[in-house]
Amino acid sequence: MFDLTDYKFVKKDGKMVHNLGEANSIFNQYIAEIRDVHVQSDMLRFRRNLERIGSLMAYEISKDLKYKIDNVQTPLGIAQVPVLQSNIVLATILRAGVPFHQGMLNIFDKAESAFISAYRKHNKDGSFKIKLEYMAKPDLKDKILILSDPMLATGASMKLTYEALIEEEKPKHTYLAAVIASAEGVEYVKKNFSKKNVSIWVGAIDDELTAQAYIVPGLGDAGDLAYGKKEDK
Amino acid sequence: MFDLTDYKFVKKDGKMVHNLGEANSIFNQYIAEIRDVHVQSDMLRFRRNLERIGSLMAYEISKDLKYKIDNVQTPLGIAQVPVLQSNIVLATILRAGVPFHQGMLNIFDKAESAFISAYRKHNKDGSFKIKLEYMAKPDLKDKILILSDPMLATGASMKLTYEALIEEEKPKHTYLAAVIASAEGVEYVKKNFSKKNVSIWVGAIDDELTAQAYIVPGLGDAGDLAYGKKEDK
Amino acid sequence: MFDLTDYKFVKKDGKMVHNLGEANSIFNQYIAEIRDVHVQSDMLRFRRNLERIGSLMAYEISKDLKYKIDNVQTPLGIAQVPVLQSNIVLATILRAGVPFHQGMLNIFDKAESAFISAYRKHNKDGSFKIKLEYMAKPDLKDKILILSDPMLATGASMKLTYEALIEEEKPKHTYLAAVIASAEGVEYVKKNFSKKNVSIWVGAIDDELTAQAYIVPGLGDAGDLAYGKKEDK
Amino acid sequence: MFDLTDYKFVKKDGKMVHNLGEANSIFNQYIAEIRDVHVQSDMLRFRRNLERIGSLMAYEISKDLKYKIDNVQTPLGIAQVPVLQSNIVLATILRAGVPFHQGMLNIFDKAESAFISAYRKHNKDGSFKIKLEYMAKPDLKDKILILSDPMLATGASMKLTYEALIEEEKPKHTYLAAVIASAEGVEYVKKNFSKKNVSIWVGAIDDELTAQAYIVPGLGDAGDLAYGKKEDK
Repeated sequence: MFDLTDYKFVKKDGKMVHNLGEANSIFNQYIAEIRDVHVQSDMLRFRRNLERIGSLMAYEISKDLKYKIDNVQTPLGIAQVPVLQSNIVLATILRAGVPFHQGMLNIFDKAESAFISAYRKHNKDGSFKIKLEYMAKPDLKDKILILSDPMLATGASMKLTYEALIEEEKPKHTYLAAVIASAEGVEYVKKNFSKKNVSIWVGAIDDELTAQAYIVPGLGDAGDLAYGKKEDK
Repeated sequence: MFDLTDYKFVKKDGKMVHNLGEANSIFNQYIAEIRDVHVQSDMLRFRRNLERIGSLMAYEISKDLKYKIDNVQTPLGIAQVPVLQSNIVLATILRAGVPFHQGMLNIFDKAESAFISAYRKHNKDGSFKIKLEYMAKPDLKDKILILSDPMLATGASMKLTYEALIEEEKPKHTYLAAVIASAEGVEYVKKNFSKKNVSIWVGAIDDELTAQAYIVPGLGDAGDLAYGKKEDK
Repeated sequence: MFDLTDYKFVKKDGKMVHNLGEANSIFNQYIAEIRDVHVQSDMLRFRRNLERIGSLMAYEISKDLKYKIDNVQTPLGIAQVPVLQSNIVLATILRAGVPFHQGMLNIFDKAESAFISAYRKHNKDGSFKIKLEYMAKPDLKDKILILSDPMLATGASMKLTYEALIEEEKPKHTYLAAVIASAEGVEYVKKNFSKKNVSIWVGAIDDELTAQAYIVPGLGDAGDLAYGKKEDK
Repeated sequence: MFDLTDYKFVKKDGKMVHNLGEANSIFNQYIAEIRDVHVQSDMLRFRRNLERIGSLMAYEISKDLKYKIDNVQTPLGIAQVPVLQSNIVLATILRAGVPFHQGMLNIFDKAESAFISAYRKHNKDGSFKIKLEYMAKPDLKDKILILSDPMLATGASMKLTYEALIEEEKPKHTYLAAVIASAEGVEYVKKNFSKKNVSIWVGAIDDELTAQAYIVPGLGDAGDLAYGKKEDK
């Protein structure tokens, strides 16, 4: 059997930014498909890919968590198996976050969930403000928070929702998770979340952010692609 | 092959209330499991059952929709198959509605989705008001709207969200869908939605509604059971 | 609450052949998609549709089964809910039956499963014989057997596998389930399974059966479409 | 954006044996659950865990495969994304392999599949022979073969099915995949598959193998736990 001393319950690395798309894996195929204008019309596949990306990202994040050894009784003996030591809360930003969250929940099926909504209120000149509307969350005290949003553009809505979530109780560590981030958004997170127990996990980092805060090449509007074109307020 | 004249594109019945639990089927087993206090601790199974209930209810509702015959080219010939004629919008009430909606989306994978939140703001005397917070929806004009909420207690939040959704454009028909309804809630719907293009589909109708608007025997709080205990505001 | 005397534990009808495609529902959309040569290249969707068809057919079959009332303890009271009285075995014919079976298992998650293989051994003149190779099955005595195969062409392999399955213990009732059947195959089943506790459930009945036993218009080879072109033996 | 020169299309390591259970991740939680005699009675969860283990193992194997850069057109620009260069065949051993295979297919949805059956024919003295019955497979020439079987006990049935599969065409590389292996089985594979393009991936390695070829502590009979107790032949 595996040697239990192999389990060194330490953080794997001190890095703040983890880009899963940098490593070769099937993960990038799902990123390719959700970006692809010719594949996007298949909403079932688009949502399925967001789910799969969520599952694989949750799994990679799980390598960073702490485990303890449990004695498990099998029909034939006792096995020692490491099981999760932390309580996890999967928070997601509505509405685009729902399939991404679903994928994470497929991995962490015992986790609690939080839903939160923030949207861009556009002014006539094209500028916008982030508005917070809805929040349903469990107690976060000393838990592991994974806050997911498919697109990390400026980083402003991630910051706002994070601050709203942790206003009262503080999680032990927060994993920010995005499918596609802009380079600018990643820099914003690095600057605004430093000295905090926060790391960020993304599937790809794109160079450009337009004046209207669209990531280029990006994929367009993840919410519209998953659920149909939303009417403006 | 089936005779195409068999397809009479008419409403199957004129009934406003459809209780799927009245017919014998495996559907009731899922209802039994989500009610059962001994099974509820398995969140994976609780959500899976809400999904399955959503899928089967969507399927039963689909029998009430209109179809047209398409000529489909197979590798060996041409087949005439009825395909959906309507555009469907699956609206759900947050957060408990998410797994129920997921089940419906598994059936209607080409549908658009709407998310809406309404919550009970409790006063100190135990009374409460329904508050609307978040709404993301596509254009509903002349579409089929399926508005889902796992629990139909007083019917007030269903009415409020319905009115918010249809304020600007009117759907052709609305299917209200609940897993468990109180008898009082069903009466409320019958009274308040009559003369409208609305029908209601439920999985079970329970007799009692407490002063705090809990359905008895019901199942408790569907949102807490699916996603963990929510903190009060 | 629903009146328990409503539950009349009797067979719904005496019919032997049930064609689900005759009723209007979203079910036919899935049939349309698996037939469609332009959609078939998406293997994920092809298998997903076979699964959905399996789930909906299992659900319709479940309306024909027997239930008993269970007292279920909810957090707030006792609910009376009908639960399945029968033990079910989901048998399927390899390899095309695997996604169809998966869909049925999504509905009857407590069922046992059986896998059986029969194939057409082609002679040089185009004729063929059905050969039985593999069988893994639980005890079937007095259980409900649902034997599934996506395509019912001549009916010969369904008959052979059925006879192999029930050789030692007899199930109480057998549901033969096929996605697409030929009219000739249905006649064969009616003739060869009469006087037995057997009914047949199909998603569509096609007129033609070629000399090579292909259903027309059909959909081609379900196994190849789900899993890739199989090499001949 | 990530630097394309980061993609070094080389084998990550030269190791023949990969034990995913050695690293800390949620993967081990699923291993714990399928081993646990108190959890095994939930067949839905047992199969779901085999699926999840299959998905995560397929993902880890995907890190070992080759990719090429594709230009993908998004609604807003062109993205360069690595996509899979290899053709994959997911072969599994019946019947226990079906949920494990399903999990892998959820990751590699464009893969072809092969199904093969081998069973232990027990003699009266408790000894047994591996018998091959059923095989349905696509052309394997120059493809990537992933051959999966939940339990790797002696290694004899893995070897037999491998040899049957590659008799005519040779795959470029073969990944043998097992959920739980015995230390003896792993040694057998190392000895019998060396000098071949074969590597082995497992979720746990257990110390003991009984005279009846049961892995201890193991989990019991994976096929029976997923599909119900199989009758002996």
